[in-house]
Amino acid sequence: MNSKAPLYQTIAEAIKARIDAGDYKPGEKIPPIRSLTKRFGVTKATVHKAFERLKQQGIIENRVGSGSYVRFPDKIHAAPGAFDFRTDYLSEHFFPYLQAQTIFNALFDAEKAHALAPTPVEGDPELRQLLGRHYHLPAERTLIISGAQQGLDLVSKVFAANISESILFEDPTYPGAISLFRARHFVPLETDGPNLDQLDRRLSNQIRLFYTMPSVHNPTGISYSAEKKQALARRAQQHGFYIIEDDYLGELKPAPSRLVDIAPDRTIHIKSFAQTTLAGIRLGLMVVPEDLLARFVFAKYSSDITSSGLLQKFMREFFKQGLYGRHIEKVRKHVDHRRNRLQTVIGLCQECAFDPGQAGYALWVRTTNHRQHLTSPWCRGEEFSFSPYFRAYARLAFMHMADEIFDQSLIYLRKYLGEAVG
Amino acid sequence: MNSKAPLYQTIAEAIKARIDAGDYKPGEKIPPIRSLTKRFGVTKATVHKAFERLKQQGIIENRVGSGSYVRFPDKIHAAPGAFDFRTDYLSEHFFPYLQAQTIFNALFDAEKAHALAPTPVEGDPELRQLLGRHYHLPAERTLIISGAQQGLDLVSKVFAANISESILFEDPTYPGAISLFRARHFVPLETDGPNLDQLDRRLSNQIRLFYTMPSVHNPTGISYSAEKKQALARRAQQHGFYIIEDDYLGELKPAPSRLVDIAPDRTIHIKSFAQTTLAGIRLGLMVVPEDLLARFVFAKYSSDITSSGLLQKFMREFFKQGLYGRHIEKVRKHVDHRRNRLQTVIGLCQECAFDPGQAGYALWVRTTNHRQHLTSPWCRGEEFSFSPYFRAYARLAFMHMADEIFDQSLIYLRKYLGEAVG
Repeated sequence: MNSKAPLYQTIAEAIKARIDAGDYKPGEKIPPIRSLTKRFGVTKATVHKAFERLKQQGIIENRVGSGSYVRFPDKIHAAPGAFDFRTDYLSEHFFPYLQAQTIFNALFDAEKAHALAPTPVEGDPELRQLLGRHYHLPAERTLIISGAQQGLDLVSKVFAANISESILFEDPTYPGAISLFRARHFVPLETDGPNLDQLDRRLSNQIRLFYTMPSVHNPTGISYSAEKKQALARRAQQHGFYIIEDDYLGELKPAPSRLVDIAPDRTIHIKSFAQTTLAGIRLGLMVVPEDLLARFVFAKYSSDITSSGLLQKFMREFFKQGLYGRHIEKVRKHVDHRRNRLQTVIGLCQECAFDPGQAGYALWVRTTNHRQHLTSPWCRGEEFSFSPYFRAYARLAFMHMADEIFDQSLIYLRKYLGEAVG
Repeated sequence: MNSKAPLYQTIAEAIKARIDAGDYKPGEKIPPIRSLTKRFGVTKATVHKAFERLKQQGIIENRVGSGSYVRFPDKIHAAPGAFDFRTDYLSEHFFPYLQAQTIFNALFDAEKAHALAPTPVEGDPELRQLLGRHYHLPAERTLIISGAQQGLDLVSKVFAANISESILFEDPTYPGAISLFRARHFVPLETDGPNLDQLDRRLSNQIRLFYTMPSVHNPTGISYSAEKKQALARRAQQHGFYIIEDDYLGELKPAPSRLVDIAPDRTIHIKSFAQTTLAGIRLGLMVVPEDLLARFVFAKYSSDITSSGLLQKFMREFFKQGLYGRHIEKVRKHVDHRRNRLQTVIGLCQECAFDPGQAGYALWVRTTNHRQHLTSPWCRGEEFSFSPYFRAYARLAFMHMADEIFDQSLIYLRKYLGEAVG
């Protein structure tokens, strides 16, 4: 604390320190002004001013009638050019923008203003057919959505009643889901999927949903074994819950069968194109079981009527001309190359350990020196879990930097790890 | 009913007839299978089959664990080329698509892949500034949203608790809002705004929101008087509720002051660009009071992270180059011209009456011959209200047809009205 600073600033720093230490976690409520007044022995106005400062800094946020909460770090806000191991989107540099420009041009040439016309609520019919063929999914139950986050949001609408108590999560898991669903119930994740004993212990009549990223999990990079997928599907049938299969980056490591193949009537399958193309391409797809289809269409309509027709048509052409497939091939090669280089650097750190079987845009690292990385430009493990266990972890995403920045960041990292262990 | 058709089909037709007659209204639950089994004296399987048929026809929809509901007519599904007085969006033919194409091209030339990059959650900073200046709104409290429907959806998230009981609506009002909020409480609308006695009678501690379209109201085309706006603003201050000012088509008839000007700390202002440009341009803006800002940003992030960056940049250029202003000028002239022609035709019908002071893309008509138009290509009054009073009304939207189709539709209308009164 800085004793020469105004009192409210000192209080603000003290609260921030507790947030950094993980005592107040993202999405959690922080104690009300009244109780902090007592704790710090200051007036309400001072605590209020401290809160205002933390709000300005984007560290906490107000929710009307409900107090102040720790904000989730905003992963798309990272400054370009910085060493950014936080953002798990692809760098713009991988995207074939000239081909995109050509597609947009051709769309206006061919369709005039109709290029910007709306599509049916379910999405552009031709795009749905194309995606159905490309991903071996049933087009008639496929909806085009405005990104994977909207897919989760639609689930939260369709299963609105008492949702926090009705849904199980992997531990660790995607913070956007924790925050959206106000997650409370977790099942520990092993390197081949959830711990089944723990899963069985947590299943009850109350549980209606299980949220999972079985292929290239975020943040751990693991994928489920075929056996664990079967086991999960069996339980979904027996207990009558639905599986939300968030196919986060499954394309980077295609599995012979997905949950949507094994248990089509129990699986809500969500796939983002923002993740595989550009964070700004807010499009995704969602496959829902027949009995839920009408409710999901209604939820989509209520949310934003339909996703941008122009972007959908662009995506249609991008797939049709084989550009998407070629783009993914290129991305895979870059991912492999960068992962190898990053693993080499992390491998030099004796206090660091990681599972070499990981896939995706990030490396999930365990370090015994975990307090060191609190202020570092990667995601701390506790952003993905409420369990203190994960404070020893960090997720280093490595695909958002341009090539030259990535090169420099490896040098920085080597130096940093040297100091940390030195 | 058709006595030679299969029994389930006859039951389906009987249910559809009651929906057409307004006995079961859009958004309402229809009686459960069990009760219809008794009513029609048939088996559960037969009623189930009838429901399936109605679902296929898009007339009803299932909501899991909650029964079957009458679907809202899907206003963006109208077949192009038909006489379409239902759709209240602009025809594509008014849109300067060549200029749009030039803008998209220039964006890719200047920004490369960055043209498709994401923006901050709140929206593209430059677009927010531009819109703030253009519409005299505070940029720092302006969010870019994926259309007006998303604005309403964000309100439903921020004010989630017991929302149906907390919100007052004009009667009649926009069906998308009725359906999203499961509206229950209404205040009759007069030609200059809400009936104030009725408004006062309905205000209670429970009411947290009032949803209004004070400039160019949908479906009535009226605008509030300055006095009624003041009266509403005063009540919002006194009773502590928020006004949702849906600036549906206010630009067609700009008012000297809006509710967001009169009561900035009590008004959530929403404006759609889909309505003034093309239905497929899923963008809008939203101004929220300071004390709600953080919650709205969080709701937006949870919903779809951010609206399409590319569309936002397009809109930025569209405004910056003065194209938006010119487009609105052109639209205004077309609206005036078509409205005059339509009013002339409707004026020939002695059983029809309308307020000549209306504005917007539609004409709100009262007819004493109201059963006639049940199967006609315009919106029936009861789509906008639960009150039987509005069954005598129809809304004829006239800007979605191309010029030649509009010409033909007037001939059709003249003939139809002649027969209806003959």
